[in-house]
Amino acid sequence: MERVSWYWPGSPGIPADDRGLAYGDGLFETIRVTADGPVLLERHRDRLLSGAQALGIPFGGCDYQQWLDEARARSLLEAGETDQIVKLTLTRGSGGRGYRIPDQPQPRLLTSVMSAPPVPRQPVSVRFCRQPVSPAPGRAGFKTLERLDQVLASQELPPECFEGLMADHEGRIVEGTRTNLMLVQGHETVTPPRHHLAVAGTLRDWLVAVLPDQGYTVTEQRLSRLDVQGGGLLLLNSVMGAVPVGQLDSVSLAVTPETLKLAQWIQQQIGLQHLDS
Amino acid sequence: MERVSWYWPGSPGIPADDRGLAYGDGLFETIRVTADGPVLLERHRDRLLSGAQALGIPFGGCDYQQWLDEARARSLLEAGETDQIVKLTLTRGSGGRGYRIPDQPQPRLLTSVMSAPPVPRQPVSVRFCRQPVSPAPGRAGFKTLERLDQVLASQELPPECFEGLMADHEGRIVEGTRTNLMLVQGHETVTPPRHHLAVAGTLRDWLVAVLPDQGYTVTEQRLSRLDVQGGGLLLLNSVMGAVPVGQLDSVSLAVTPETLKLAQWIQQQIGLQHLDS
Repeated sequence: MERVSWYWPGSPGIPADDRGLAYGDGLFETIRVTADGPVLLERHRDRLLSGAQALGIPFGGCDYQQWLDEARARSLLEAGETDQIVKLTLTRGSGGRGYRIPDQPQPRLLTSVMSAPPVPRQPVSVRFCRQPVSPAPGRAGFKTLERLDQVLASQELPPECFEGLMADHEGRIVEGTRTNLMLVQGHETVTPPRHHLAVAGTLRDWLVAVLPDQGYTVTEQRLSRLDVQGGGLLLLNSVMGAVPVGQLDSVSLAVTPETLKLAQWIQQQIGLQHLDS
Repeated sequence: MERVSWYWPGSPGIPADDRGLAYGDGLFETIRVTADGPVLLERHRDRLLSGAQALGIPFGGCDYQQWLDEARARSLLEAGETDQIVKLTLTRGSGGRGYRIPDQPQPRLLTSVMSAPPVPRQPVSVRFCRQPVSPAPGRAGFKTLERLDQVLASQELPPECFEGLMADHEGRIVEGTRTNLMLVQGHETVTPPRHHLAVAGTLRDWLVAVLPDQGYTVTEQRLSRLDVQGGGLLLLNSVMGAVPVGQLDSVSLAVTPETLKLAQWIQQQIGLQHLDS
């Protein structure tokens, strides 16, 4: 018997006793595949593997390599005309007595494919959400299957609103429901610290690593409502890239030429559509 | 098409895009069925329905009644010799764009049956867990599918340890991984307040309602480590009833005659096995 159970598009359904379903006992990644191939693939791998280690789910580098080989054999990660998203869901599998984990967990890795959402070509409209976000101590940043904060915040968004900004219990602005945040002023950028985040995005982490080489300063610092109302706000995730914010609730935000320039550089680097300039 | 999708023991697996699996977007209940029938059935119903309302999952009293009729037709809730547990898992179903919920959610209700764990016949041994518990603001007490705190706390427990006590981020003792807590001193009882709980147990809620008529005072008050180390500690859940604690880490706890008496009265009321006296 293989240690990991693999589920591919078209596989039968998941057993009702799966611990991912029962307890949120697992992790996920959504990987965008563009005309240039998969976006930030190594960073998705690293987050998945470090999350699995933190939760104690036995899924390591060799398992990931096995998935990668099979996904490539199935042409799921091939650069193509049609943009798509490959979603990975890793669960601890079935078994155990209640919350207690089984002696020999047999993880499940589910792979599904969906079409990518369009990348906005204009600055977007966002709002402050009432639903707070509560990063769990000890697993801040990992993309676990516990995402009810984000689901409930999304319920507050009318269709024309692109994203909602979520605050922690102290009122600091932490992130969007599906994006990280970055403030741009000239060549200075500010983003909330990693250990305060509910999800540490792959694009955010990559930018923190590479922006200094591009002549930007990167400061990891908590943000207030006033900070984000000052303009120069970018939404970040690896599925849509960098999206400038033009309106926050009823207030128009300045989208400076520097902000647009950085957003377009990011889109170019990861092979995503440019904004209209 | 029926609005709710029903899954019974033996049904095919769950679609991989179920939002319960993807985001913890759902709720569950575990109902013990004894020789007297289902334990605290109405309180399980009430918690499930109020949780569904809080999350905005369209599952109401008529849907529950439909489940109850079908479960009875399948003899799942019949009083019997063999004790069993009927587990209900309610999810928001499939669909939506990412975290955003679909316009017309089609919830799933999964019913599964398992054998009940033995009820301890002697006071049990417990320990303090390092893993904290973080009740989510706005959904404290509801039994959502987000239970990673409890899974990770359970990993700290050696096999001979019956339960782990979890503290909040301020160090107050909130509950066990699968039980609520009650301190008994004579005819005075103390239990942590409902809005601080990760799970508001049906047995705890029932006791808060009925104990005053039995001549007990019930005080809802936060507990410190010192409080629970003072003895007279009962673990509560509707699957095992009331279980006295005889040891906490390396310290023996007093199990007073009053504590034993209350525990036995509770077991008798809900049709569960008595402790050895």
